Amino acid sequence: MSDMADIGIIGLAVMGENLILNMANHGYTVACFNRTTSKVDAFINGRADGKSIIGCYSLEELVRALELPRKVMLMVKAGGAVDALIEALIPLLAPGDIIIDGGNSYFKDTTRRVRQVEEAGLRYIGTGISGGEEGALKGPSIMPGGSVNAWEDIRELFQTIAAKTETGAPCCDWVGEQGAGHFVKMVHNGIEYGDMQLIGEVYHFMRVLLGLTNEHMHEIFTQWNRGVLNSYLIEITADILAYRNEQGEYALDAILDATGQKGTGKWTVMSALESGQPLTLISEAVFARCLSSLVDERRVAAEALASASDIPDLDTATMTGHLEQALYASKIVSYAQGYQLMRATAQEQGWHLDYGAIARMWSGGCIIRSAFLGKIREAYDEDPELVNLLLAPFFKAAVLKAERAWRICVACAVESGLPMPAVSSALAYFDGYRCARLPANLLQAQRDYFGAHTYERLDTPRGTFFHTNWTGEGGDTASTSYDV
Amino acid sequence: MSDMADIGIIGLAVMGENLILNMANHGYTVACFNRTTSKVDAFINGRADGKSIIGCYSLEELVRALELPRKVMLMVKAGGAVDALIEALIPLLAPGDIIIDGGNSYFKDTTRRVRQVEEAGLRYIGTGISGGEEGALKGPSIMPGGSVNAWEDIRELFQTIAAKTETGAPCCDWVGEQGAGHFVKMVHNGIEYGDMQLIGEVYHFMRVLLGLTNEHMHEIFTQWNRGVLNSYLIEITADILAYRNEQGEYALDAILDATGQKGTGKWTVMSALESGQPLTLISEAVFARCLSSLVDERRVAAEALASASDIPDLDTATMTGHLEQALYASKIVSYAQGYQLMRATAQEQGWHLDYGAIARMWSGGCIIRSAFLGKIREAYDEDPELVNLLLAPFFKAAVLKAERAWRICVACAVESGLPMPAVSSALAYFDGYRCARLPANLLQAQRDYFGAHTYERLDTPRGTFFHTNWTGEGGDTASTSYDV
Repeated sequence: MSDMADIGIIGLAVMGENLILNMANHGYTVACFNRTTSKVDAFINGRADGKSIIGCYSLEELVRALELPRKVMLMVKAGGAVDALIEALIPLLAPGDIIIDGGNSYFKDTTRRVRQVEEAGLRYIGTGISGGEEGALKGPSIMPGGSVNAWEDIRELFQTIAAKTETGAPCCDWVGEQGAGHFVKMVHNGIEYGDMQLIGEVYHFMRVLLGLTNEHMHEIFTQWNRGVLNSYLIEITADILAYRNEQGEYALDAILDATGQKGTGKWTVMSALESGQPLTLISEAVFARCLSSLVDERRVAAEALASASDIPDLDTATMTGHLEQALYASKIVSYAQGYQLMRATAQEQGWHLDYGAIARMWSGGCIIRSAFLGKIREAYDEDPELVNLLLAPFFKAAVLKAERAWRICVACAVESGLPMPAVSSALAYFDGYRCARLPANLLQAQRDYFGAHTYERLDTPRGTFFHTNWTGEGGDTASTSYDV
Repeated sequence: MSDMADIGIIGLAVMGENLILNMANHGYTVACFNRTTSKVDAFINGRADGKSIIGCYSLEELVRALELPRKVMLMVKAGGAVDALIEALIPLLAPGDIIIDGGNSYFKDTTRRVRQVEEAGLRYIGTGISGGEEGALKGPSIMPGGSVNAWEDIRELFQTIAAKTETGAPCCDWVGEQGAGHFVKMVHNGIEYGDMQLIGEVYHFMRVLLGLTNEHMHEIFTQWNRGVLNSYLIEITADILAYRNEQGEYALDAILDATGQKGTGKWTVMSALESGQPLTLISEAVFARCLSSLVDERRVAAEALASASDIPDLDTATMTGHLEQALYASKIVSYAQGYQLMRATAQEQGWHLDYGAIARMWSGGCIIRSAFLGKIREAYDEDPELVNLLLAPFFKAAVLKAERAWRICVACAVESGLPMPAVSSALAYFDGYRCARLPANLLQAQRDYFGAHTYERLDTPRGTFFHTNWTGEGGDTASTSYDV
C-alpha cells in the first residue's frame, strides 16, 4: 500500500462514509475530508479505525495526500455545495486531475460543470451512485459520465467497488458525455419512485380490500420475490412487513403515511415534459407522494367525502395472483416509459446510450435491481434499436398474459374506492399506446375552432396543415405566431 | 376621436389583429406595427379599413403615434421576441409609459421583466388573454398583473374590451404583482388542456364502446350544454360533431389524431411539480397529447398488442347519463387541483389572489368559460379560505352524486381496453384525497430501510423523526445531507 491515497472523498454523510469503507475494503487508500471536521475525527476513530483511510482537515491537506493524477470525489448535497467545492478545488489541482461528483446532481448542472472544469484544464466526472447506504458499503451501481478521457483513470477503482451481476459483470460502465451519467441515474430514481408506488398500491389493496395481516403479506411478498417480481424492493418489503419492534409491534403500522420527495423524481417528470415523452406512471408516483403529504387535509376529506362503497367479497388466493400480474404489467409499462424518455433525451443531446449496458448497471447494487432488468438487457442486446419495451417479444408476451388480471385489479379498485393511481395510469397508457385512433382528432378540431391552430388529415401526408372555418366567421387567418 | 392613439399594438397575427379590431370597435384609436411590414399594409387595407386604426412601419413611428402615458402592447410569440422588443422599446419610451405583454409568456419571465422595466423607470403589465380568435374580437378574458400602479391607466380600456359575465361584470380584474397575471393564465391553459382531454375521452367512449354516430353525439353534447356541463368547449364540440364539408363528409373524421402541445400545459405541470402539488389530471392530459403524437408507433402497437377484450353490451341512454356525471366529477377534480396549485404558488410568491375574482374572469370570454365557474366563484365568495373545492358544499354534493356513475364508466373503460387516462386519474385522486391512510407508510419504511431517510410516526407529533435499523446492519447513521 502506498503512502499516498488513490482517491480523496469529500463529505462524510452515510453514503460518503460507506463508499470510503468499500474502497478501503478493496485495498485502496482513501483520503477523506468533511467541512465540519469533527466528523473526520469521529469517522477516523470510529468506523475507519485500522483501515487505509487518511483523515484530512482542509482541502489543501486532502489534495496533498493524493497520487497523480488526483481524483477528488464529492459526496455532498446536490446544488450550491458542489459548485462551491469545484471553485475551491480548481486552484488546488493540476492539469489532468479529476473532480468526480458522486451526488444526485441535476444532469444539466453536470453538463455545465463538465465544460467549466475542462476549460480549467482538469477533467470532470458526474456519476450516479445507487444502492443506498448498504449498496455504498457492499457494492453500488455506478453510472459515470462526463470527460470521456477520464474513464480509463477511474475504471478499475469504480468497477472494483461496484456491485456485480450474477455472472460477475460489474454494475458500472461508461454512460456517456456531459451529464449522461447523472441523467441515467435520474431516470433510475424516477423508476424507483414508480416501483415503490406500485408496491405501495398493491400493499394497500391487500391490506384494505383483502384484509390481510402483515404476516400474510410478508409471506406473499416473500413468494413473489421468487418469481417474476424478484427484486430488492420486493425483498425489503417482505422484510419490512415482518419487522416488529422490542414490544412486538409491527414498525410499519406506526409509520405516518406521508412521503417526502426530493429532487430526482420531480426532475425525471420535468425532463419528460421537456422532451414531450409520456411518463405517466412516474408522474403519478411523484404526485402520489405530494398527495400523501397533505395528511391533515386527507383526514378531513375522509370524513367529508365518505361514501358507501362496499368492500367486495374477493378470493384472496385468486386476487393476490392477479395483483402479482398487475404489478408486473405496470412495472413493464413504467420501464417502457423510462426507456422511451432515455431514448428521446439521448437523441436530443447527441448521446449514444447503450440501453443494454444501462440495464446491466441497474441489475445489481442499486435500489431497483431485479431479475426483470436481466430481461430488459436481453431485449436491448437482441434489438438495440427497440422502439418500446412493450414491443419486445418477451415483454409483449408478459403483458398480454397479465392483461386480464391487471384489468380485474384496476376495476376492482375503481369499484371499491381504493386509489391505485400508478397501476391504473399504467393500464391507461397501455391502452393508449396500442390505440390506433385516439380521440386527439377532436382536440385538434377544438384547437382549430377556437384558435385557428390548423390540423393534419388522415388522408394527406404528414406536414400538410388545414384550417376549417367552423363557424363561418373569423376569416381564414390561421394562428402562426401566437399560441393560445 | 383624438389624432393620437390610445394604445399601440405590436404583432399582427390573428390574436393581435382581432384585439385591435375589438378596441377600435369600442371607440379606441389603435396604432399597430408588425416586423414584416407587408402585414401592416394588408391589415390596414383589409380588415382595418375605415376603422380608427393607424398603421406604423417602425417602432419609432408607433411610439410617436401614442398619447401619454404611452401604452405599447406586445402580441408576439412568447420568448426571445418579447425580450428583444422590451430592449428596443425602453430607449424609445419615457418615464411612466407602460409596456404590456399580452402573449403567453412564462410567469417567471414576466416577474423578471416587471423588475427590468420598472428599473428603467417604466411600468410593465403581463396579461393573460384567453378566448382565441373569436374572444379577442368579441371580448376575451383578460388577466393582468405586474406594476400595480399601471392598473388604473389600463383598467377602462381592458374592462371595456373584455367579455362580460351574465350579470354584466367584466371578465377582467387585477390579478396581482409580478407574473401573477401570466401565472393565472397558465393555470387556465392547463385547465383547458384537462377539459379538452376529458371531453376527448368521453367522445372516445361514445364512439367506440357505444358505437354512436357523430349526429347522435352532436345531440348528446347539445343536450349536455343545457345542463351542469354548460360551457364553451361542450358547445363547440357539439358544433364540431355536426360539421360537414362541401362533400357532406364529417370534417372531424378526417382529422389526424395527433395533438400538438405548446408551452403552457407543460409549464402548469412543471409548476405543480415545483410546488409539490398533485396536479394529476392536467399532467395526464399533457402526456396524452404526447402519446397521441406517436402516431406511427401506436399503429404498430395496435397490431402487436391487440387482445380480445370484448365490447360490452351497454345501454346507450344509461351510459351517456353516466358519462355526463363522470365528466362533471372529473372536471370538479381538475379545477380542485388547479385551485390547489394557485393557492400554493400564491403562498410561495406572496401574492394575494382573489379566487372568486379569478373564477369570474374565467366565466366569460375564455376557452374554459362555463356555468360551472359561476359555482366556483360562489364557493370562494362564501369561503375565501376554502382549502379544496371538493370540500365546498356544492361540489361535495355534486361529486358524491356523480360518484357511482363515474366508477361505472371507469370500470367499463378498464374492462374494455379503452384508455381514459384523465377520467381515471381524477377518480384515483378523489379516492386518494379522501383516504385517511394511504400506503405511504410503506414507502417511508422502504426509504428508511435503504437510505436511512427516517420517518415520522402516527403517535408522535409531526417533526419528530425516527430511524429503524431494519437489517441489524448499517449502523444508526441517518441520512442527513445525501439524498438517494
